[in-house]
Amino acid sequence: MSNQILSVGCIPPNVNDLEKTLECSQEGGFNFLVTQILQKSDNPEKEPASLEPKPFQENQLIIKNSFSAESIVAQVSEWIDFEHDDHSLRISSEQAFRQQVEWASYNGVSAVLLPTVARMSSVVNFARCVNNSIDLLRFSGIWARVPLHSATNNENDAWLKWNQLRTLCSHNPALGIALELTKHLPEDESVLRRWLAEPIRSVIIPTDIFTLNAKGYPVLGKQHQKFINELFRLGPYFILSGDDSELFGQGQESLHLQYLKYLYRIKPDLTLLEQHADGYEDCLQAPLQPLMDNLESSTYEVFEQCPMKYVQYEKAVYHALLERVPPNSDITTVIMVVGAGPRGPLVQCSLRAAEKAQRKVKLYAVEKNRHAFVTLQATKERIWGDQVEIVFEDMRKWKAPELADILVSELLGSFGDNELSPECLDGVQKFLKPDGISIPQSYTAYISPLSSAKLHKEACNYKDRKNLETPYVVMFKAVHEFAAPQKVWDFTHPNTQVHVDKDGHPSNNLHNTRYSHNIFTSTNGGVLHGLAGYFDSALYKGVDISIHPETHTPSMFSWFPIYFPIETPIQVPEGAKIETHIWRLTDQRKVWYEWSVSVSMASPNHQKDIIIHTTPIHNCDGRSSWIGL
Amino acid sequence: MSNQILSVGCIPPNVNDLEKTLECSQEGGFNFLVTQILQKSDNPEKEPASLEPKPFQENQLIIKNSFSAESIVAQVSEWIDFEHDDHSLRISSEQAFRQQVEWASYNGVSAVLLPTVARMSSVVNFARCVNNSIDLLRFSGIWARVPLHSATNNENDAWLKWNQLRTLCSHNPALGIALELTKHLPEDESVLRRWLAEPIRSVIIPTDIFTLNAKGYPVLGKQHQKFINELFRLGPYFILSGDDSELFGQGQESLHLQYLKYLYRIKPDLTLLEQHADGYEDCLQAPLQPLMDNLESSTYEVFEQCPMKYVQYEKAVYHALLERVPPNSDITTVIMVVGAGPRGPLVQCSLRAAEKAQRKVKLYAVEKNRHAFVTLQATKERIWGDQVEIVFEDMRKWKAPELADILVSELLGSFGDNELSPECLDGVQKFLKPDGISIPQSYTAYISPLSSAKLHKEACNYKDRKNLETPYVVMFKAVHEFAAPQKVWDFTHPNTQVHVDKDGHPSNNLHNTRYSHNIFTSTNGGVLHGLAGYFDSALYKGVDISIHPETHTPSMFSWFPIYFPIETPIQVPEGAKIETHIWRLTDQRKVWYEWSVSVSMASPNHQKDIIIHTTPIHNCDGRSSWIGL
Repeated sequence: MSNQILSVGCIPPNVNDLEKTLECSQEGGFNFLVTQILQKSDNPEKEPASLEPKPFQENQLIIKNSFSAESIVAQVSEWIDFEHDDHSLRISSEQAFRQQVEWASYNGVSAVLLPTVARMSSVVNFARCVNNSIDLLRFSGIWARVPLHSATNNENDAWLKWNQLRTLCSHNPALGIALELTKHLPEDESVLRRWLAEPIRSVIIPTDIFTLNAKGYPVLGKQHQKFINELFRLGPYFILSGDDSELFGQGQESLHLQYLKYLYRIKPDLTLLEQHADGYEDCLQAPLQPLMDNLESSTYEVFEQCPMKYVQYEKAVYHALLERVPPNSDITTVIMVVGAGPRGPLVQCSLRAAEKAQRKVKLYAVEKNRHAFVTLQATKERIWGDQVEIVFEDMRKWKAPELADILVSELLGSFGDNELSPECLDGVQKFLKPDGISIPQSYTAYISPLSSAKLHKEACNYKDRKNLETPYVVMFKAVHEFAAPQKVWDFTHPNTQVHVDKDGHPSNNLHNTRYSHNIFTSTNGGVLHGLAGYFDSALYKGVDISIHPETHTPSMFSWFPIYFPIETPIQVPEGAKIETHIWRLTDQRKVWYEWSVSVSMASPNHQKDIIIHTTPIHNCDGRSSWIGL
Repeated sequence: MSNQILSVGCIPPNVNDLEKTLECSQEGGFNFLVTQILQKSDNPEKEPASLEPKPFQENQLIIKNSFSAESIVAQVSEWIDFEHDDHSLRISSEQAFRQQVEWASYNGVSAVLLPTVARMSSVVNFARCVNNSIDLLRFSGIWARVPLHSATNNENDAWLKWNQLRTLCSHNPALGIALELTKHLPEDESVLRRWLAEPIRSVIIPTDIFTLNAKGYPVLGKQHQKFINELFRLGPYFILSGDDSELFGQGQESLHLQYLKYLYRIKPDLTLLEQHADGYEDCLQAPLQPLMDNLESSTYEVFEQCPMKYVQYEKAVYHALLERVPPNSDITTVIMVVGAGPRGPLVQCSLRAAEKAQRKVKLYAVEKNRHAFVTLQATKERIWGDQVEIVFEDMRKWKAPELADILVSELLGSFGDNELSPECLDGVQKFLKPDGISIPQSYTAYISPLSSAKLHKEACNYKDRKNLETPYVVMFKAVHEFAAPQKVWDFTHPNTQVHVDKDGHPSNNLHNTRYSHNIFTSTNGGVLHGLAGYFDSALYKGVDISIHPETHTPSMFSWFPIYFPIETPIQVPEGAKIETHIWRLTDQRKVWYEWSVSVSMASPNHQKDIIIHTTPIHNCDGRSSWIGL
């Protein structure tokens, strides 16, 4: 199901005649029907426990024939008891479960709805039975039914049981959730939001959580509406559960269904960023290697599509020009744009800024990509003329004919320094005047611990360690962050600390190594799948760009966040401390990151913290991922 | 180094002239010398921090030339500070470390002794540097120096730091421990014993932990002696650390070295079991498939080497005969030995028992292995004659000409039922008289949570999941059990609960499935690498055999324990609860085990247990290991 279509099914309390009920549900506007496999009367107490089940009797069955299987979700009997103390009765239950799942698979139903997790005191033996059945259901969905809230358990309980279940089943991606909304939703916002990082395949909405509005129509409360809006973004199936009269009684579309469709129609519009991100969400992209490889033409085009970024650059150059030269002066400011690209958007910004500031400027546009340089020549010819000198050279090796007042670059990656802006700018600052300005002036990297089964699964799909030790650029959707991002390090330009040789080249790159140790507290716990990375940058005095969630530059979509995976997901208990260690390291040929996470809990006597998990250090010596110098 | 040779080196406090000191140490009886790489005077405070180190000056170095490298262990400078707050000073330290390790590797020393872990408040950045150097030292040992006890920290601290270090380094098998004995050893026996499951490559014994005996000779206290005896079994290198005068002063073998050699000479003899196990310790063996495959001749020979087992069987048959038939009766007791093997040791036992009990017996010896049957025919011819009838048949399919009084079998595996004794005996009980006796009468399986880096590494060596989901037969040595074994299940024969078809064959095998959930408490914590499995069996009324550690039948070496690995080692905090789930499952063609472990801790407010780890269920549906029916 795509984001664009709402697919809603129904669970009536009792199905006797499948064909008839299916007809009713279709007349009622539903896309599919959830039904028990067996008649409700087929209760195990009726016959003595025989270890091995006999074939079903036809009259036991509701789902008999497969002609409409694609509109059917098969519900496994709720009476099945995976925890029975009596060995034989437990085995009978396990056998009954297996037989029902096999029957569902044989008939090719579109999904199987498993018994409710909340009523089990332990999910372990249930998990074992599910685990052994997953392969049977290769072509159907498998949905664990999880009510959001129960009167008897605490708010966290539903999630803890689900988490135990999927962990026991090796995080098998075939296993998803049928999340059942309840009258009371967890009050803690982050308990609720944590579900959004989970594989929610369907959402069950019981009709009895609706209230009647002044006109007598069924509606949902604000909190439910808001949560359903968030769920719409994930695109699950929806299922209304209620009495026949509520679902099909009116000979027309059910009022509850009408209301759900109404909510879907009026859901908030996507922001510019969301529109741009549509289709990229939760898809892993390897970060660029702009220094080692030549970027492709289409990549430049994507970069240049974001107007907001260049608005900020223009402002920054404008302020720098104002500050550097008094009004009405004859002084010409030398601006060098390093990494100009085929169409030189930063050259454009600088020219606009100069015009607005009424300052004289001379521009150099340096570009090392020989393919981009072809277009750059045409751009100069067509638009800029003599005011801009274009240079085909690696900026680090260029011998500039004069010193620059302002150096403008857009070498930043999603994590700030991850496309080697520090190394490039170290290499060019030798032709910046002693009091010259670099735009950007500085940039800061941030991380936060992240939960996302989806992203981890994507990284695991490659089935080798390399891909679990590679940072990815990705637009987050089904993610949950344990705590607000924290700063890990920053870079400032020009950097007067760099030791240079007689030609002005840095004698080594050790000053660009970094190490940060951060401590986060997880209020509600969850499963940790890696680290989210962001950056912000001071372009010039008060003009910033940012992808940090709390200060994100509005409508800027040039950068998605970065995701550092960890090899094995980690269980984080509520109240635990998450410690992260991240390094930026370097040798002669490359730059890379290493990272490690550990989790600790207060000991029962509160005397100390006990480490309960430590990951290995990832990407040791840059073995799996690095950026070439 | 094998178990048979004691190799002792020394660390003098100061080496100036390597060649001369090496000579002294050889004269003093030492096999190798541990020395700093650099002169002590080479202290980093002397020169300003330059990020990138210059080549060593020759006069800075102690280890200069490689001619005696195989007798040298190189010690990295203790001043190196991996945690310095100042970025540049920390990087200088890291660079110095790297340079020393590279120098050691260049010179081909036999091992590198790393700086002492205990003095670091965090080992994380140290771990990162070690991790990045491990590949350099492919041909040398890498020893992390860990003093057993420090006055300032608690008893657990040394182990926790070591554990953090090796976890951060991905459990890299190249990284070992130089365990430094201290005057005070941890009082808690299990804190001490936990080290025995660790990769101890060398043991440093400072001379100042010795006391002088009445004659003025240096000796060690009882607790130290006992622990050193345990260490002798693991075969590490030993290293005496002390003043030159103590190590080389006497122009003869140092008194401390003499004492250590004396301890080695008088170390306790190996038990019969240990002798038999020598060479097999911590080596993983796949369990037998006696039903599906034909055992090899040599396997039978190994089985038959254990006299104790047959002593017990003889006793059991003897008691059964006495009970079954009054003295001086003419009644002939029919004994069937199922799975007789080539030389029929159980037939021999039964005949000896009959003679001793003065009872008349008729024996059937049934064997399905056509190769073993060749020898069995000869055995009958040569020894037994008409008293024994031999039958070439799978016991489950044999149509016996008469009913048996006593059924004798030795179908037990290390986990009791893991060689399919239950299924085999179900298949033959149809020709046992209604009041007939099965020897064994019953058997019980036990498990306990186990720590053993060695065993886990062995299972990982195969580099696929299959081998981490296979139970192995293994003689434990470098292991530590978190708690005493607990019963998981038992089997009793004959089993009157079996549903049989008209031919007396069991209609299915579901009655032989089992499920056990056990809870253990870990006092001191550790790293969990899997489960240890044992069995005991009641052969007949009070005559038992057992490999359960607390009731092990003396001198019986027919069975080693079984080891169920887990895919990823789990950190178990002190005081945590370890819950195990294990299943014995079956389908038409095979029997298999599945298992899972979870660890929980009391919440800081003691109100509930919080699950901090859950493993996936291992060997789902028998995908990786199974025993063929």
